[in-house]
Amino acid sequence: MPLNQEKLPEKTVERLSQYRRTLLNYFKSGKLNIFSHELAKMLHLTSVQVRRDIMLIGYSGSQRKGYDVKELINKIGSIIDTKEGQNVAIIGMGSLGGAITRYFKGKRPKLNIVAAFDIDRQKFDKIISGIPCYSMEKLNTVIKKKNITLAIITMPPDNVTETAKKLVKSGIKGIVNYTSVPLNVSPNAYLEEYDMITSLEKAAYFAKTSAK
Amino acid sequence: MPLNQEKLPEKTVERLSQYRRTLLNYFKSGKLNIFSHELAKMLHLTSVQVRRDIMLIGYSGSQRKGYDVKELINKIGSIIDTKEGQNVAIIGMGSLGGAITRYFKGKRPKLNIVAAFDIDRQKFDKIISGIPCYSMEKLNTVIKKKNITLAIITMPPDNVTETAKKLVKSGIKGIVNYTSVPLNVSPNAYLEEYDMITSLEKAAYFAKTSAK
Repeated sequence: MPLNQEKLPEKTVERLSQYRRTLLNYFKSGKLNIFSHELAKMLHLTSVQVRRDIMLIGYSGSQRKGYDVKELINKIGSIIDTKEGQNVAIIGMGSLGGAITRYFKGKRPKLNIVAAFDIDRQKFDKIISGIPCYSMEKLNTVIKKKNITLAIITMPPDNVTETAKKLVKSGIKGIVNYTSVPLNVSPNAYLEEYDMITSLEKAAYFAKTSAK
Repeated sequence: MPLNQEKLPEKTVERLSQYRRTLLNYFKSGKLNIFSHELAKMLHLTSVQVRRDIMLIGYSGSQRKGYDVKELINKIGSIIDTKEGQNVAIIGMGSLGGAITRYFKGKRPKLNIVAAFDIDRQKFDKIISGIPCYSMEKLNTVIKKKNITLAIITMPPDNVTETAKKLVKSGIKGIVNYTSVPLNVSPNAYLEEYDMITSLEKAAYFAKTSAK
Protein backbone atom coordinates (compact mmCIF):
# COMPACT_ATOMS: atom_id res chain seq x y z
CA MET A 1 0.00 0.00 0.00
CA PRO A 2 1.27 3.44 -0.88
CA LEU A 3 -0.09 4.94 2.33
CA ASN A 4 0.53 3.67 5.76
CA GLN A 5 -2.94 4.43 6.98
CA GLU A 6 -5.79 2.91 8.92
CA LYS A 7 -8.61 1.16 7.12
CA LEU A 8 -11.20 3.64 5.87
CA PRO A 9 -14.85 3.27 6.86
CA GLU A 10 -17.05 1.33 4.38
CA LYS A 11 -19.19 4.32 3.50
CA THR A 12 -16.10 6.40 2.73
CA VAL A 13 -14.77 3.75 0.36
CA GLU A 14 -18.19 3.61 -1.29
CA ARG A 15 -18.14 7.36 -1.86
CA LEU A 16 -14.51 7.34 -3.08
CA SER A 17 -15.51 4.78 -5.69
CA GLN A 18 -18.39 7.04 -6.73
CA TYR A 19 -16.16 10.13 -6.80
CA ARG A 20 -13.72 8.40 -9.09
CA ARG A 21 -16.40 7.20 -11.48
CA THR A 22 -17.89 10.68 -11.65
CA LEU A 23 -14.46 12.27 -12.08
CA LEU A 24 -13.55 9.88 -14.90
CA ASN A 25 -16.63 10.98 -16.83
CA TYR A 26 -15.96 14.60 -16.01
CA PHE A 27 -12.36 14.27 -17.21
CA LYS A 28 -13.51 12.59 -20.43
CA SER A 29 -15.65 15.63 -21.15
CA GLY A 30 -12.48 17.73 -21.08
CA LYS A 31 -12.65 19.32 -17.62
CA LEU A 32 -9.40 19.59 -15.68
CA ASN A 33 -10.56 21.07 -12.36
CA ILE A 34 -13.56 20.64 -10.12
CA PHE A 35 -14.80 22.28 -6.93
CA SER A 36 -16.04 20.19 -4.02
CA HIS A 37 -19.50 21.71 -4.34
CA GLU A 38 -19.68 20.67 -8.02
CA LEU A 39 -18.69 17.10 -7.26
CA ALA A 40 -21.08 17.10 -4.30
CA LYS A 41 -23.96 18.25 -6.45
CA MET A 42 -23.43 15.52 -9.04
CA LEU A 43 -23.64 12.89 -6.33
CA HIS A 44 -26.37 14.48 -4.22
CA LEU A 45 -24.02 14.94 -1.27
CA THR A 46 -22.96 17.97 0.76
CA SER A 47 -19.69 19.68 -0.14
CA VAL A 48 -18.59 19.33 3.50
CA GLN A 49 -18.88 15.57 3.08
CA VAL A 50 -16.84 15.60 -0.11
CA ARG A 51 -14.10 17.78 1.37
CA ARG A 52 -13.91 15.64 4.50
CA ASP A 53 -13.57 12.38 2.50
CA ILE A 54 -10.89 13.80 0.25
CA MET A 55 -8.99 15.31 3.14
CA LEU A 56 -9.11 11.88 4.77
CA ILE A 57 -7.12 10.37 1.91
CA GLY A 58 -4.55 13.14 2.20
CA TYR A 59 -5.46 15.22 -0.82
CA SER A 60 -6.51 18.83 -1.11
CA GLY A 61 -7.42 21.27 -3.83
CA SER A 62 -6.65 24.92 -4.32
CA GLN A 63 -9.09 27.57 -3.15
CA ARG A 64 -9.10 29.20 -6.55
CA LYS A 65 -9.27 26.20 -8.90
CA GLY A 66 -10.64 23.41 -6.76
CA TYR A 67 -9.30 19.88 -7.21
CA ASP A 68 -7.09 18.81 -10.09
CA VAL A 69 -9.33 16.11 -11.62
CA LYS A 70 -6.54 13.89 -12.94
CA GLU A 71 -4.58 14.03 -9.69
CA LEU A 72 -7.64 13.23 -7.62
CA ILE A 73 -8.51 10.25 -9.85
CA ASN A 74 -4.98 8.92 -9.38
CA LYS A 75 -5.05 9.58 -5.67
CA ILE A 76 -8.30 7.64 -5.24
CA GLY A 77 -6.81 4.88 -7.40
CA SER A 78 -3.81 4.65 -5.11
CA ILE A 79 -6.19 4.13 -2.18
CA ILE A 80 -8.64 1.65 -3.72
CA ASP A 81 -6.55 -0.26 -6.25
CA THR A 82 -3.44 -2.30 -5.90
CA LYS A 83 -0.59 -1.52 -8.29
CA GLU A 84 -0.82 -4.83 -10.15
CA GLY A 85 -4.63 -5.00 -9.98
CA GLN A 86 -6.64 -7.81 -8.42
CA ASN A 87 -8.00 -10.91 -10.11
CA VAL A 88 -11.65 -11.84 -9.81
CA ALA A 89 -13.53 -15.13 -10.17
CA ILE A 90 -17.19 -15.61 -11.05
CA ILE A 91 -18.72 -18.47 -9.09
CA GLY A 92 -21.67 -19.76 -11.14
CA MET A 93 -21.53 -18.97 -14.85
CA GLY A 94 -25.26 -18.87 -15.53
CA SER A 95 -27.08 -15.99 -17.19
CA LEU A 96 -26.45 -13.64 -14.25
CA GLY A 97 -22.76 -14.56 -14.06
CA GLY A 98 -22.43 -14.01 -17.79
CA ALA A 99 -24.22 -10.67 -17.69
CA ILE A 100 -22.02 -9.44 -14.83
CA THR A 101 -18.87 -10.55 -16.65
CA ARG A 102 -19.88 -8.67 -19.78
CA TYR A 103 -20.92 -5.66 -17.71
CA PHE A 104 -17.53 -5.39 -16.02
CA LYS A 105 -15.49 -5.94 -19.16
CA GLY A 106 -13.04 -3.06 -19.53
CA LYS A 107 -14.78 -0.94 -16.88
CA ARG A 108 -12.04 -1.28 -14.26
CA PRO A 109 -8.58 -2.14 -15.57
CA LYS A 110 -7.37 -2.96 -12.06
CA LEU A 111 -10.11 -5.56 -11.51
CA ASN A 112 -9.79 -8.44 -13.93
CA ILE A 113 -12.28 -11.27 -14.16
CA VAL A 114 -9.94 -14.13 -15.04
CA ALA A 115 -11.90 -17.30 -14.29
CA ALA A 116 -15.40 -18.67 -13.81
CA PHE A 117 -16.55 -21.84 -12.06
CA ASP A 118 -19.66 -23.90 -12.60
CA ILE A 119 -21.07 -27.36 -11.90
CA ASP A 120 -22.35 -27.82 -15.46
CA ARG A 121 -19.84 -30.07 -17.24
CA GLN A 122 -20.95 -28.64 -20.60
CA LYS A 123 -19.13 -25.49 -19.54
CA PHE A 124 -15.88 -27.01 -18.25
CA ASP A 125 -12.74 -25.76 -19.95
CA LYS A 126 -14.70 -23.57 -22.36
CA ILE A 127 -14.48 -19.81 -22.87
CA ILE A 128 -17.81 -18.28 -21.77
CA SER A 129 -18.52 -14.55 -22.02
CA GLY A 130 -14.83 -14.17 -22.78
CA ILE A 131 -13.35 -15.99 -19.80
CA PRO A 132 -12.37 -19.60 -19.12
CA CYS A 133 -14.87 -21.65 -17.11
CA TYR A 134 -13.70 -24.45 -14.83
CA SER A 135 -15.22 -27.25 -12.79
CA MET A 136 -15.96 -26.31 -9.17
CA GLU A 137 -13.53 -29.04 -8.22
CA LYS A 138 -10.68 -26.93 -9.54
CA LEU A 139 -11.60 -23.97 -7.33
CA ASN A 140 -8.62 -24.18 -5.03
CA THR A 141 -6.06 -24.96 -7.73
CA VAL A 142 -7.15 -22.25 -10.16
CA ILE A 143 -7.57 -19.56 -7.49
CA LYS A 144 -4.04 -20.16 -6.27
CA LYS A 145 -2.50 -20.52 -9.72
CA LYS A 146 -4.14 -17.35 -11.07
CA ASN A 147 -3.64 -15.41 -7.85
CA ILE A 148 -7.36 -14.60 -7.53
CA THR A 149 -8.31 -12.55 -4.46
CA LEU A 150 -11.94 -11.57 -5.19
CA ALA A 151 -15.02 -13.67 -5.94
CA ILE A 152 -18.49 -12.81 -7.18
CA ILE A 153 -21.00 -15.50 -6.22
CA THR A 154 -23.90 -15.88 -8.65
CA MET A 155 -24.68 -19.58 -8.24
CA PRO A 156 -28.01 -21.13 -7.20
CA PRO A 157 -28.56 -21.14 -3.41
CA ASP A 158 -27.93 -24.84 -2.67
CA ASN A 159 -24.23 -24.97 -1.82
CA VAL A 160 -23.42 -21.31 -1.33
CA THR A 161 -22.31 -21.59 2.30
CA GLU A 162 -19.90 -24.47 1.62
CA THR A 163 -18.59 -22.78 -1.51
CA ALA A 164 -17.89 -19.54 0.37
CA LYS A 165 -15.92 -21.51 2.95
CA LYS A 166 -13.86 -23.12 0.18
CA LEU A 167 -13.26 -19.73 -1.41
CA VAL A 168 -11.90 -18.27 1.79
CA LYS A 169 -9.77 -21.35 2.37
CA SER A 170 -8.33 -20.99 -1.12
CA GLY A 171 -7.23 -17.43 -0.36
CA ILE A 172 -10.16 -15.24 -1.46
CA LYS A 173 -10.12 -11.99 0.54
CA GLY A 174 -13.26 -10.26 -0.74
CA ILE A 175 -16.66 -11.68 -1.77
CA VAL A 176 -19.61 -10.03 -3.48
CA ASN A 177 -22.60 -12.26 -2.79
CA TYR A 178 -25.46 -12.00 -5.30
CA THR A 179 -27.32 -14.98 -3.91
CA SER A 180 -30.07 -14.84 -1.33
CA VAL A 181 -28.07 -16.96 1.11
CA PRO A 182 -26.65 -14.86 3.96
CA LEU A 183 -22.96 -15.56 4.52
CA ASN A 184 -20.53 -15.10 7.35
CA VAL A 185 -16.90 -15.11 6.27
CA SER A 186 -15.34 -12.66 8.68
CA PRO A 187 -12.71 -12.13 9.88
CA ASN A 188 -10.97 -13.90 6.98
CA ALA A 189 -12.64 -12.07 4.11
CA TYR A 190 -14.67 -8.97 3.43
CA LEU A 191 -18.27 -9.59 2.40
CA GLU A 192 -20.53 -7.39 0.32
CA GLU A 193 -24.10 -8.72 0.26
CA TYR A 194 -25.97 -7.86 -2.86
CA ASP A 195 -29.39 -9.44 -2.74
CA MET A 196 -31.52 -8.42 -5.70
CA ILE A 197 -34.82 -9.63 -4.29
CA THR A 198 -34.43 -7.65 -1.08
CA SER A 199 -33.67 -4.50 -3.10
CA LEU A 200 -36.81 -4.88 -5.14
CA GLU A 201 -38.87 -5.71 -2.06
CA LYS A 202 -37.62 -2.57 -0.33
CA ALA A 203 -38.59 -0.49 -3.35
CA ALA A 204 -41.95 -2.30 -3.41
CA TYR A 205 -42.65 -1.55 0.24
CA PHE A 206 -41.85 2.15 -0.06
CA ALA A 207 -43.70 2.40 -3.37
CA LYS A 208 -46.75 0.96 -1.64
CA THR A 209 -46.57 3.18 1.42
CA SER A 210 -45.99 6.31 -0.66
CA ALA A 211 -49.08 5.47 -2.72
CA LYS A 212 -51.23 5.50 0.41
CA MET B 1 -52.65 -1.33 3.43
CA PRO B 2 -53.90 -3.79 6.06
CA LEU B 3 -52.19 -1.91 8.86
CA ASN B 4 -52.57 1.71 9.61
CA GLN B 5 -48.99 2.19 10.63
CA GLU B 6 -46.08 4.52 10.14
CA LYS B 7 -43.50 3.78 7.50
CA LEU B 8 -40.93 1.30 8.76
CA PRO B 9 -37.22 2.17 8.66
CA GLU B 10 -35.33 0.96 5.56
CA LYS B 11 -33.12 -1.42 7.48
CA THR B 12 -36.16 -3.03 9.11
CA VAL B 13 -37.80 -3.62 5.73
CA GLU B 14 -34.55 -5.11 4.50
CA ARG B 15 -34.47 -7.53 7.42
CA LEU B 16 -38.17 -8.41 7.08
CA SER B 17 -37.50 -9.36 3.48
CA GLN B 18 -34.62 -11.55 4.63
CA TYR B 19 -36.68 -13.12 7.43
CA ARG B 20 -39.39 -14.07 4.97
CA ARG B 21 -36.99 -15.62 2.52
CA THR B 22 -35.32 -17.62 5.28
CA LEU B 23 -38.70 -18.67 6.71
CA LEU B 24 -39.96 -19.81 3.30
CA ASN B 25 -36.99 -22.16 2.98
CA TYR B 26 -37.43 -23.30 6.56
CA PHE B 27 -41.11 -24.01 5.95
CA LYS B 28 -40.30 -25.93 2.78
CA SER B 29 -38.09 -28.20 4.83
CA GLY B 30 -41.13 -29.11 6.92
CA LYS B 31 -40.58 -26.97 10.03
CA LEU B 32 -43.67 -25.31 11.53
CA ASN B 33 -42.18 -23.29 14.38
CA ILE B 34 -39.04 -21.28 14.93
CA PHE B 35 -37.48 -19.44 17.85
CA SER B 36 -36.12 -15.94 17.45
CA HIS B 37 -32.61 -17.13 18.29
CA GLU B 38 -32.77 -19.76 15.53
CA LEU B 39 -33.87 -17.21 12.94
CA ALA B 40 -31.24 -14.78 14.24
CA LYS B 41 -28.50 -17.37 13.90
CA MET B 42 -29.38 -18.14 10.27
CA LEU B 43 -29.08 -14.47 9.41
CA HIS B 44 -26.11 -13.60 11.61
CA LEU B 45 -28.18 -11.21 13.72
CA THR B 46 -28.95 -11.00 17.44
CA SER B 47 -32.20 -12.52 18.71
CA VAL B 48 -33.01 -9.17 20.37
CA GLN B 49 -32.93 -7.60 16.91
CA VAL B 50 -35.22 -10.26 15.45
CA ARG B 51 -37.72 -9.99 18.31
CA ARG B 52 -37.76 -6.21 18.10
CA ASP B 53 -38.41 -6.21 14.32
CA ILE B 54 -41.20 -8.75 14.59
CA MET B 55 -42.79 -6.98 17.53
CA LEU B 56 -42.72 -3.81 15.42
CA ILE B 57 -45.00 -5.39 12.83
CA GLY B 58 -47.41 -6.47 15.55
CA TYR B 59 -46.64 -10.17 15.70
CA SER B 60 -45.44 -12.32 18.56
CA GLY B 61 -44.62 -15.95 19.16
CA SER B 62 -45.24 -18.23 22.10
CA GLN B 63 -42.59 -18.71 24.75
CA ARG B 64 -42.79 -22.47 24.41
CA LYS B 65 -42.93 -22.92 20.64
CA GLY B 66 -41.52 -19.69 19.22
CA TYR B 67 -43.09 -18.19 16.11
CA ASP B 68 -45.56 -20.02 13.91
CA VAL B 69 -43.59 -20.02 10.63
CA LYS B 70 -46.59 -19.90 8.29
CA GLU B 71 -48.27 -17.10 10.23
CA LEU B 72 -45.09 -15.05 10.35
CA ILE B 73 -44.54 -15.47 6.59
CA ASN B 74 -48.08 -14.21 5.98
CA LYS B 75 -47.68 -11.39 8.43
CA ILE B 76 -44.52 -10.14 6.72
CA GLY B 77 -46.30 -10.50 3.39
CA SER B 78 -49.12 -8.28 4.62
CA ILE B 79 -46.54 -5.61 5.45
CA ILE B 80 -44.33 -5.78 2.36
CA ASP B 81 -46.71 -6.87 -0.40
CA THR B 82 -49.88 -5.36 -1.73
CA LYS B 83 -52.87 -7.70 -2.05
CA GLU B 84 -52.93 -7.57 -5.85
CA GLY B 85 -49.15 -7.48 -6.20
CA GLN B 86 -47.14 -4.81 -7.97
CA ASN B 87 -46.07 -4.72 -11.58
CA VAL B 88 -42.46 -4.14 -12.54
CA ALA B 89 -40.76 -2.84 -15.69
CA ILE B 90 -37.20 -3.51 -16.83
CA ILE B 91 -35.65 -0.41 -18.39
CA GLY B 92 -32.95 -1.66 -20.76
CA MET B 93 -33.35 -5.24 -21.99
CA GLY B 94 -29.69 -6.04 -22.57
CA SER B 95 -27.89 -9.01 -21.10
CA LEU B 96 -28.16 -7.69 -17.55
CA GLY B 97 -31.87 -6.88 -17.93
CA GLY B 98 -32.48 -10.35 -19.34
CA ALA B 99 -30.51 -12.06 -16.58
CA ILE B 100 -32.42 -10.15 -13.89
CA THR B 101 -35.75 -10.99 -15.51
CA ARG B 102 -34.93 -14.69 -15.57
CA TYR B 103 -33.57 -14.52 -12.04
CA PHE B 104 -36.80 -13.06 -10.66
CA LYS B 105 -39.12 -15.39 -12.57
CA GLY B 106 -41.46 -17.07 -10.11
CA LYS B 107 -39.40 -15.98 -7.08
CA ARG B 108 -41.94 -13.43 -5.80
CA PRO B 109 -45.54 -13.95 -6.94
CA LYS B 110 -46.48 -10.45 -5.74
CA LEU B 111 -43.83 -8.78 -7.91
CA ASN B 112 -44.48 -9.35 -11.60
CA ILE B 113 -42.15 -8.18 -14.32
CA VAL B 114 -44.68 -7.36 -17.03
CA ALA B 115 -42.80 -5.17 -19.51
CA ALA B 116 -39.35 -4.22 -20.73
CA PHE B 117 -38.23 -1.13 -22.63
CA ASP B 118 -35.26 -0.68 -24.91
CA ILE B 119 -33.97 1.63 -27.61
CA ASP B 120 -33.00 -1.23 -29.95
CA ARG B 121 -35.75 -1.48 -32.58
CA GLN B 122 -34.85 -5.15 -33.15
CA LYS B 123 -36.44 -5.78 -29.78
CA PHE B 124 -39.62 -3.74 -30.14
CA ASP B 125 -42.83 -5.68 -29.70
CA LYS B 126 -41.00 -8.97 -29.21
CA ILE B 127 -41.07 -11.32 -26.25
CA ILE B 128 -37.61 -11.33 -24.64
CA SER B 129 -36.73 -13.50 -21.65
CA GLY B 130 -40.46 -14.18 -21.40
CA ILE B 131 -41.77 -10.63 -21.33
CA PRO B 132 -42.85 -8.13 -23.99
CA CYS B 133 -40.30 -5.48 -24.91
CA TYR B 134 -41.41 -2.02 -26.05
CA SER B 135 -39.88 1.09 -27.52
CA MET B 136 -38.80 3.67 -24.92
CA GLU B 137 -41.26 6.00 -26.57
CA LYS B 138 -44.10 3.90 -25.21
CA LEU B 139 -42.87 4.24 -21.63
CA ASN B 140 -45.67 6.44 -20.39
CA THR B 141 -48.48 4.65 -22.22
CA VAL B 142 -47.47 1.12 -21.24
CA ILE B 143 -46.70 2.00 -17.62
CA LYS B 144 -50.14 3.50 -17.20
CA LYS B 145 -51.96 0.81 -19.15
CA LYS B 146 -50.28 -2.05 -17.28
CA ASN B 147 -50.42 -0.27 -13.93
CA ILE B 148 -46.67 -0.58 -13.36
CA THR B 149 -45.37 0.94 -10.12
CA LEU B 150 -41.78 -0.35 -9.97
CA ALA B 151 -38.87 -0.04 -12.39
CA ILE B 152 -35.47 -1.71 -12.57
CA ILE B 153 -33.02 0.39 -14.58
CA THR B 154 -30.34 -1.63 -16.38
CA MET B 155 -29.71 0.60 -19.39
CA PRO B 156 -26.37 2.14 -20.47
CA PRO B 157 -25.52 5.37 -18.59
CA ASP B 158 -26.26 7.94 -21.30
CA ASN B 159 -29.88 8.90 -20.68
CA VAL B 160 -30.48 7.48 -17.24
CA THR B 161 -31.31 10.79 -15.54
CA GLU B 162 -33.92 11.80 -18.15
CA THR B 163 -35.38 8.30 -18.20
CA ALA B 164 -35.76 8.27 -14.42
CA LYS B 165 -37.63 11.56 -14.62
CA LYS B 166 -39.97 10.13 -17.23
CA LEU B 167 -40.54 7.05 -15.13
CA VAL B 168 -41.57 9.10 -12.12
CA LYS B 169 -43.79 11.28 -14.28
CA SER B 170 -45.48 8.16 -15.64
CA GLY B 171 -46.35 7.02 -12.12
CA ILE B 172 -43.42 4.83 -11.05
CA LYS B 173 -43.15 4.86 -7.24
CA GLY B 174 -40.04 2.74 -6.69
CA ILE B 175 -36.81 2.43 -8.68
CA VAL B 176 -33.93 -0.01 -8.39
CA ASN B 177 -30.99 1.60 -10.18
CA TYR B 178 -28.35 -0.83 -11.48
CA THR B 179 -26.51 1.82 -13.46
CA SER B 180 -23.56 3.83 -12.25
CA VAL B 181 -25.44 7.11 -12.64
CA PRO B 182 -26.54 8.54 -9.29
CA LEU B 183 -30.20 9.54 -9.29
CA ASN B 184 -32.37 11.84 -7.26
CA VAL B 185 -36.07 11.08 -7.53
CA SER B 186 -37.31 11.96 -4.06
CA PRO B 187 -39.81 12.83 -2.81
CA ASN B 188 -41.86 11.34 -5.65
CA ALA B 189 -40.36 7.86 -5.70
CA TYR B 190 -38.25 5.58 -3.56
CA LEU B 191 -34.78 4.85 -4.90
CA GLU B 192 -32.61 1.83 -4.27
CA GLU B 193 -29.11 2.32 -5.72
CA TYR B 194 -27.46 -0.91 -6.72
CA ASP B 195 -24.13 -0.13 -8.27
CA MET B 196 -22.20 -3.27 -9.11
CA ILE B 197 -18.84 -1.60 -9.66
CA THR B 198 -18.87 0.13 -6.28
CA SER B 199 -19.66 -3.19 -4.58
CA LEU B 200 -16.71 -4.87 -6.20
CA GLU B 201 -14.44 -1.90 -5.49
CA LYS B 202 -15.40 -1.99 -1.82
CA ALA B 203 -14.59 -5.69 -1.67
CA ALA B 204 -11.33 -4.96 -3.53
CA TYR B 205 -10.31 -2.25 -1.06
CA PHE B 206 -10.96 -4.38 2.01
CA ALA B 207 -9.38 -7.42 0.36
CA LYS B 208 -6.27 -5.35 -0.21
CA THR B 209 -6.11 -3.87 3.28
CA SER B 210 -6.73 -7.25 4.93
CA ALA B 211 -3.86 -8.72 2.93
CA LYS B 212 -1.45 -6.16 4.39
